[in-house]
Amino acid sequence: MAYHVESLQNLIDRFARLPGIGSKSAARLAFHVLNMPRDEAEGFSSAILEARSKIHCCKLCQNLTDGETCNLCQNPARDAATVCVVEDTQDVMAIERTREYNGLYHVLHGVIAPLAGVGPDQLRIKELIARVAEGGITELIMATNPTVEGEATASYLSRLLKPFDVKVTRLAYGIPVGGDLEYADEVTLSRALAGRLEI
Amino acid sequence: MAYHVESLQNLIDRFARLPGIGSKSAARLAFHVLNMPRDEAEGFSSAILEARSKIHCCKLCQNLTDGETCNLCQNPARDAATVCVVEDTQDVMAIERTREYNGLYHVLHGVIAPLAGVGPDQLRIKELIARVAEGGITELIMATNPTVEGEATASYLSRLLKPFDVKVTRLAYGIPVGGDLEYADEVTLSRALAGRLEI
Repeated sequence: MAYHVESLQNLIDRFARLPGIGSKSAARLAFHVLNMPRDEAEGFSSAILEARSKIHCCKLCQNLTDGETCNLCQNPARDAATVCVVEDTQDVMAIERTREYNGLYHVLHGVIAPLAGVGPDQLRIKELIARVAEGGITELIMATNPTVEGEATASYLSRLLKPFDVKVTRLAYGIPVGGDLEYADEVTLSRALAGRLEI
Repeated sequence: MAYHVESLQNLIDRFARLPGIGSKSAARLAFHVLNMPRDEAEGFSSAILEARSKIHCCKLCQNLTDGETCNLCQNPARDAATVCVVEDTQDVMAIERTREYNGLYHVLHGVIAPLAGVGPDQLRIKELIARVAEGGITELIMATNPTVEGEATASYLSRLLKPFDVKVTRLAYGIPVGGDLEYADEVTLSRALAGRLEI
């Protein structure tokens, strides 16, 4: 019978299930938690619960928020006529870090990927159409990742939005093709925003 | 005003405080938690609380346990006459993984490190002396890390234990000098156990 403490092993297993955490890192993290002050551990525990229970999608832009609408949609200083369409919340954060964009967002929560079984119905596309149909939006910037799926989703959306009187643009190829928008540096992302072209 | 969700940012900050987790990894882990099924997130949260509240030191070997004594001390099949002295619980796990050792352990919870302000009184040395004084132990294997502090602690303990009728041995230098016991591979650790020499 080897050394085994159930609650410790459980915690190690939980950490090991997180992306990019192997079994040795998981053990290291678990022991770090055991050595934390008690209030720190309690804070960590409740942060997980709170984030999981409080956070949901903004009813306008589908971005993650803990209110009814997110603080970007609520902000009157943002230009509501320009909407940047992104794959997920990390991309909103990446574009916000450039401090060069003052419009609003629309988060699709994925891209069309037939091989993975993701069709247009699983994405927040009808919410985007509803926002455009309501009027007031003059430009939509497609900022999906520069991958095959991202490009296809952007083309699909631009065709879908043809009937509406709205300019559809695409981030310029300042962003490295095949990469991940979340990891682009601020300058590259700023260039891509500035050099956007009509589809 | 940038995009900001307090409970999300809190969770990211909590992850970023863990060892070896940078801000981008922390964000990735936090988003992973948000996308978890609810019961999985609740399980993770309570695993942290449970591990932190239930786990304490075994009253015999000072190893971490959720009972009064750990399951190694409770096991009648283990050889209670041999005690392996290690720095921390990760080292117990490392030696257990070799499946070559059948004795008990004593966890010091650190090593003597004057520069870091750790003296013999902060370690579980008096508990070790009490165990030896009680009798029944014929061999103590010093398995502290092969670092300056680990060696010094092993020498200090062997001098301290001179008055008692007990053989004090040291892990053989199969273990790479200057390394960390926790990361030694099973074969190296097995060799080190087999080739131990009297100090």
